[in-house]
Amino acid sequence: MKKKAIVALSGGMDSTTVLAKLLDEGYEVECFAFDYGSKHSHYELEAASKVAFFYGVPLHGPIDLKSTMSMFESNLLKTGGAIPEGHYSHPSMEQTVVPARNIIFLSIMAGLAWSRGASKIAIGIHQGDHAIYADCRTDFYKAMDSAIFLGTDKRVEIIAPFLETDKTGILDWGLVHEVPYHLTRTCYKEQQDSCGVCGSCVERLEAFAAHGVRDPIAYEDDVREVGE
Amino acid sequence: MKKKAIVALSGGMDSTTVLAKLLDEGYEVECFAFDYGSKHSHYELEAASKVAFFYGVPLHGPIDLKSTMSMFESNLLKTGGAIPEGHYSHPSMEQTVVPARNIIFLSIMAGLAWSRGASKIAIGIHQGDHAIYADCRTDFYKAMDSAIFLGTDKRVEIIAPFLETDKTGILDWGLVHEVPYHLTRTCYKEQQDSCGVCGSCVERLEAFAAHGVRDPIAYEDDVREVGE
Repeated sequence: MKKKAIVALSGGMDSTTVLAKLLDEGYEVECFAFDYGSKHSHYELEAASKVAFFYGVPLHGPIDLKSTMSMFESNLLKTGGAIPEGHYSHPSMEQTVVPARNIIFLSIMAGLAWSRGASKIAIGIHQGDHAIYADCRTDFYKAMDSAIFLGTDKRVEIIAPFLETDKTGILDWGLVHEVPYHLTRTCYKEQQDSCGVCGSCVERLEAFAAHGVRDPIAYEDDVREVGE
Repeated sequence: MKKKAIVALSGGMDSTTVLAKLLDEGYEVECFAFDYGSKHSHYELEAASKVAFFYGVPLHGPIDLKSTMSMFESNLLKTGGAIPEGHYSHPSMEQTVVPARNIIFLSIMAGLAWSRGASKIAIGIHQGDHAIYADCRTDFYKAMDSAIFLGTDKRVEIIAPFLETDKTGILDWGLVHEVPYHLTRTCYKEQQDSCGVCGSCVERLEAFAAHGVRDPIAYEDDVREVGE
């Protein structure tokens, strides 16, 4: 019997590459989308659908956390203020933290995995997120993996294949394995074409630039340094 | 400034006593109710409202997890089969486990606490639940407390004041402190009066019997051994 995993698929570069890696490793994968009321939720869900269709895997959900998270403070949410522009290292990017988001996603995925007979839940956290997102760091990951393993009576474990690398490292693996980055979307803003200037876009563009590859998605203004 | 805590209030004996204990210890408390689609949700929410009103604390929510948990397998849910009768130690009671329920509740409470400037989240888990509910055990609690502390960048910690005792021990504290057990509700079934025969009722009745005190709530048939 194939080993089974649940992937939280946002349609971004990281979760798409995690999905590709698990399929490459022989897992049977079921994907779940979350709608937590982010400004970019519509575009994120659209990208997740395209990616799941590309790989021929089921995409369930979206898990509706809009009302729950409307009580949370974050500028990433429709209920919050404007998305800041600039690099992740800038203090203003802390406004994009959604309190406990990955803790919540992983918890719900643990319950889904248990209910569906999957022993692994996979998430695309990586080193590049560590500075401002506490729930992407290695020490958090280890504690959460223990909590989920024990709390599910040793049924479910977390896999985070890119925990020790960054977005450039993710792209290393993804470009070799022909991950369909043209279908993915990373921007935090509520608009069709990506802005190119929010922290999330900046990090993505840096990763493509580091590989000397042109990012295949549409940007509002042409901000790409490579392949013009 | 008063220290602030978030309590998940189900209107049962355990969470009601946790609320009373935190108030007794001087915390400013905000309560949240969860509706996860359990068979007894209507009655649970009614009891939680009465308890919050009694103590004059805000009760927010219910946090709506019905659609999320409709994908989970459990006979405690409206989407599952019948509630088994008998003692918690009976294997059939495993059908009442809701996969990862406390992991999910604690995760969402962590995000709420962070957003509302509370440093503690409190939950009524205790030894009596340990046999079948993995996410009520001490080792789980310790790992989850670490995960939440690290994942919230050291903002939020879990308090479980009755972790090392059982329902009889909870009642020890509650009877001395005049907790309004007449307002609480424990039964797993979808009915106004408590059944007295599900695992949850049986455990409650045993705790009252151990104290030689008549349980003040209404039961369908009179199953109380004490104070008739």
